[in-house]
Amino acid sequence: METGKYIINDYLDELSSKAAVPGGGGVAALSAALGASLASMVCSLTIGKEKYKEYEAEVIEIKQQALELQESFLKFADDDAHAFLPLSKAYSMPRKTDEEKAARSQVMQQALIAAAEVPFNLIKTCTATIEMYEALLTKGSTLAISDVAVGAEMIITAASSALLNVYINTKLFADKQSAAEMNQTAEGLVKEIKERLGNVIEQVKIKVKGS
Amino acid sequence: METGKYIINDYLDELSSKAAVPGGGGVAALSAALGASLASMVCSLTIGKEKYKEYEAEVIEIKQQALELQESFLKFADDDAHAFLPLSKAYSMPRKTDEEKAARSQVMQQALIAAAEVPFNLIKTCTATIEMYEALLTKGSTLAISDVAVGAEMIITAASSALLNVYINTKLFADKQSAAEMNQTAEGLVKEIKERLGNVIEQVKIKVKGS
Repeated sequence: METGKYIINDYLDELSSKAAVPGGGGVAALSAALGASLASMVCSLTIGKEKYKEYEAEVIEIKQQALELQESFLKFADDDAHAFLPLSKAYSMPRKTDEEKAARSQVMQQALIAAAEVPFNLIKTCTATIEMYEALLTKGSTLAISDVAVGAEMIITAASSALLNVYINTKLFADKQSAAEMNQTAEGLVKEIKERLGNVIEQVKIKVKGS
Repeated sequence: METGKYIINDYLDELSSKAAVPGGGGVAALSAALGASLASMVCSLTIGKEKYKEYEAEVIEIKQQALELQESFLKFADDDAHAFLPLSKAYSMPRKTDEEKAARSQVMQQALIAAAEVPFNLIKTCTATIEMYEALLTKGSTLAISDVAVGAEMIITAASSALLNVYINTKLFADKQSAAEMNQTAEGLVKEIKERLGNVIEQVKIKVKGS
């Protein structure tokens, strides 16, 4: 079943089971989708308000972008499930003869690269939300300012979780240089996401916390 | 509609809209439910495995606890939605005469306390997951070690997000001492959650990251 068609209770039941998917990769993607959806909500609560009229055109654009990102993130949850199957098949390939071992290793390496690319691309897509949140900090309705921060929290968690899912795959790459490069690039992106969205969250905290 | 009956796509559509609920409070609760569900998944993948036989009884207990927490967290999402309605009603009460102002203020203060208690209790419940994750770090299947960290990430995000939702309500408390006390207690709990689950995540990172 595609993630998008799950009833939340059923999804949680399936998640809690020993079924191979969904797992941490799917949850990371869903977390990002929730984050993008909250950004869209903040836009929805801002559009049409006299107080924010000067930002209206920009906020309408941000909303469109947030909705597109929400859809992309949800697709990553399905991609994650799809990437797991070939990996699982590769693991169960025979490995008695040298030929079998070589064939298994080749299939597995391809499956590992494909499996690592899903969380890697999820992280890349998370970076596309940064400017959106930074803009909403000043241009979104102050009534929904805490939701800007909750959305940013969900994106940080999605990216941090995806990084772990990059690691568990790159760790088994035969090509250690590719593994190190992918890890480094992903770490750099996650660092930027944490710093800039962390800053958004801090600024929201200052605004919402009473003296 | 109760959160637990939502199809994920429909939930995201409703979330992204300007409807009063769900919002950041519901997402915080859902995030915690996803975290508890992942803890249960790790248990499911551990139970019955020869390698972890010595921990089996304990892991079965943790799974039961995780499933109960998953249900509690999902209930907080509905509680959050229910707490919003009286607050919204209080806002729209008349405030022309002094009597009306006083009546409105009293109703609003009660609604604010009720609205603050939902994220406050969510944070408290999040602390109940800490020992669970610490135990799974060594007693859960190493095949699902990254999921332990993703689960811990979801709980940290849930608690941090809930803290913002405590703030937006306590900020408007007439009783400033109660507000400060609730903030301080919540901050202390969130600090403990971040430190101890942050430590779990760091230890997972060391295990899953290749050299």
